[in-house]
Amino acid sequence: MKKLQIIKIGGKVIDDEQQLSSVLRAFAKTEGAKILVHGGGSKATKMETTLGLKPNMVEGRRITDASALEVVIMVYAGLINKSIVAGLQGFECNALGLSGADGNVIQCEKRPVNPIDYGFVGDVKTVNHAFIASLIEAGLTPVFSAITHNGKGQLLNTNADTMASEIAVAMSNQYEVELIFAFEKNGVLDASGNVIKTITEVKFSELQKKKIIIDGMIPKLSNAFYALNKGVKEVKLTSAEHLVNKKSSYTTVVI
Amino acid sequence: MKKLQIIKIGGKVIDDEQQLSSVLRAFAKTEGAKILVHGGGSKATKMETTLGLKPNMVEGRRITDASALEVVIMVYAGLINKSIVAGLQGFECNALGLSGADGNVIQCEKRPVNPIDYGFVGDVKTVNHAFIASLIEAGLTPVFSAITHNGKGQLLNTNADTMASEIAVAMSNQYEVELIFAFEKNGVLDASGNVIKTITEVKFSELQKKKIIIDGMIPKLSNAFYALNKGVKEVKLTSAEHLVNKKSSYTTVVI
Repeated sequence: MKKLQIIKIGGKVIDDEQQLSSVLRAFAKTEGAKILVHGGGSKATKMETTLGLKPNMVEGRRITDASALEVVIMVYAGLINKSIVAGLQGFECNALGLSGADGNVIQCEKRPVNPIDYGFVGDVKTVNHAFIASLIEAGLTPVFSAITHNGKGQLLNTNADTMASEIAVAMSNQYEVELIFAFEKNGVLDASGNVIKTITEVKFSELQKKKIIIDGMIPKLSNAFYALNKGVKEVKLTSAEHLVNKKSSYTTVVI
Repeated sequence: MKKLQIIKIGGKVIDDEQQLSSVLRAFAKTEGAKILVHGGGSKATKMETTLGLKPNMVEGRRITDASALEVVIMVYAGLINKSIVAGLQGFECNALGLSGADGNVIQCEKRPVNPIDYGFVGDVKTVNHAFIASLIEAGLTPVFSAITHNGKGQLLNTNADTMASEIAVAMSNQYEVELIFAFEKNGVLDASGNVIKTITEVKFSELQKKKIIIDGMIPKLSNAFYALNKGVKEVKLTSAEHLVNKKSSYTTVVI
């Protein structure tokens, strides 16, 4: 089986133009088949505020009403996606930006309104892995923004970590997939702030009970275990910096 | 040679959700190979105003400074492009949204600053017709926003009519191309406001001198003649309404 690297970037690396450029340069140089999935950093929230809208987050997830949806489409699928694609092209990586609607590559269902009405938020239903594979085989590097659609004309906002996991799972029938979540920290941290080298589901549950793993790290790790349980070969959590210099430590998620 | 229809939509049809939906439904039903190129309507200008920026137009063309560029990327390549793609998917047309940076499909050069410094505006240098043809042959319908790049990491704003013409010219080595510019009017109008059925370069020049053809119609027709002179089979100017009902009249541009 051929290898495929799927890298998800988000948070501050998206906001920091210089760091983003270093990450894109390193990503462009990475040999072999690869996919980039990006989040939105703080740009969407800033744009909402500038436009006089009130960002509404519940447990770190955005409540996406019609106005918020317009903003995330503009910022994620427009500004960030096209800036990343142009940046990669500048580093001689033949990137192709995609939302889930493009080529019907990721179809979602609007999340049920109970227990919390998240608005125009989509949960992944299908990933067209054959289409993604055909792009890769044609020498292209897909770059996904976390905007999807329901196949009936409605765009939806989707969590970028979840999207990366779902793409990784779908691609693992044709590729040996390595999934890397890059973010602010060097990996999953223990109570003393040191990087945990290897994390199992048992340890995850333990550290959750002790409130050492909290907030956004919980869904990120849940996505990681989900991916491994569904056939993804390897999942790592590391810093954006590590993508550039390969020097810092990281956490390997194992089942 | 296989036939290829390239339809450019812009202006009020982009702003009018219902009309846009009718146009997309009709376009989705059109048989054979096809490409959609879209402008931005008034949304970018409205967004600039909302964000406290001052839209700056010279002879109907936007002076694109760094802030204006961010807005057009968000609005054209994000909001409008993805809404159109999702809309077409809803009508069972397998659309794929593209900026010029995606797959390096359209590379531009930043326009020289003399005589007028238009800012981040690009003039088309290369169109990757083989890539576009491969998408069409794979059953996809390319949907172009008029955002391009210079191949060195810089995104650029490009006139959508020009982009449609350049794509039409590039594709005409492999296809018999029909290029349709759809806009507010039923075609090119004479002094009495009636649609001119056929317009030649001689007549164009005559009507320009008489100030009957003015403003945005001049570059539109120049693009039309350019396309015909470079191998495009047929060029028409008509209303968005005509795309839906095929009832209204239109202007055929001839050389």
